Amino acid sequence: MSVSLDGFVAGLDQSRDQPLGVGGIRLHDWHFHPGDPAYEASEPVRDHLLRPVGAYIMGRNMFGPVRGEWDEDWRGWWGEEPPYHAPVFVLTHYAHEPIEMKGGTTFHFVTDGFVAAHEQARAVAGDGDVDIAGGASAVRQGFRAGLLDELMLDIVPVLLGAGERLLEDVGDPVLTPVEVVDSPHATHVRYRVGG
Amino acid sequence: MSVSLDGFVAGLDQSRDQPLGVGGIRLHDWHFHPGDPAYEASEPVRDHLLRPVGAYIMGRNMFGPVRGEWDEDWRGWWGEEPPYHAPVFVLTHYAHEPIEMKGGTTFHFVTDGFVAAHEQARAVAGDGDVDIAGGASAVRQGFRAGLLDELMLDIVPVLLGAGERLLEDVGDPVLTPVEVVDSPHATHVRYRVGG
Repeated sequence: MSVSLDGFVAGLDQSRDQPLGVGGIRLHDWHFHPGDPAYEASEPVRDHLLRPVGAYIMGRNMFGPVRGEWDEDWRGWWGEEPPYHAPVFVLTHYAHEPIEMKGGTTFHFVTDGFVAAHEQARAVAGDGDVDIAGGASAVRQGFRAGLLDELMLDIVPVLLGAGERLLEDVGDPVLTPVEVVDSPHATHVRYRVGG
Repeated sequence: MSVSLDGFVAGLDQSRDQPLGVGGIRLHDWHFHPGDPAYEASEPVRDHLLRPVGAYIMGRNMFGPVRGEWDEDWRGWWGEEPPYHAPVFVLTHYAHEPIEMKGGTTFHFVTDGFVAAHEQARAVAGDGDVDIAGGASAVRQGFRAGLLDELMLDIVPVLLGAGERLLEDVGDPVLTPVEVVDSPHATHVRYRVGG
């Protein structure tokens, strides 16, 4: 998760036109410049994000901007070939048939909560990781369910001042930094979660 | 400044008995174990904190817990030989004669704001650095005055959930991480401030 130094994963006024809210796009600058030497230090982190993953869990707002029933035409933000290449379990209150995309991504819609989504993801992931693709609410649900092994934070040297916080109402988990990748654009920290 | 991963420099209910508030002491665990191999990775940061500094600026609550007029008996939290060994300019609304301590520390009380304190500190610091000893409010005043060159953050993998935030109402300064020291107890990041 890319997070501002003051703790936000998105700015104010998230909308279909501005899914990351005011200023939120700045949190992702570090991975928009592959091949640019000025951004080389973040390369291992970009590579990690693109590694094969067994399955993903995704929050509803990350999949689509529509509140309420699904728009039948909506197939996610990522075009016909999303970058996941694995089953993606979308947390939602509205049932929907699975949507099969190109390149191995299938969106499944789970209406009975994070733990159920995690079980389904774990069942299909085999030896692969189950990753939370985002957003912040899905990560918080993972913390509250005690189902996170790792938290990857990209701490971006930007202050948004307001917006959606990541680490709020998740209790007091044991977190241990186990790896840091240092770049001028973000401090990437991998935390082990739990004792 | 030691800061929790959710952005707090102190927990709730700061008081004379509990100057860092509920849980706040956990933010300083990383520098309480000099010589302990488990805390060795933070050694360079502890050494940096103990280096000779030209002068300090200190917020009023960091110097003493008393609100209102000064208690004439109060000489700071640190005993007769504080660890500063330099002039310390304390921001306050209440004038007070300087207090000379052992070991080179003299507390001066400045009633006309951060910029004035900075001028006085700069004047006596010579070639040495002017450091903000803390607390959070003094750092925020430094940001707002545009007088910070560097911000040293010790990002501690602890969630306090509530308390005093550091990076709030300081605008949108340009911050660039220039050095990271990675330990299991804190991720120490030195930011350059300004373009």
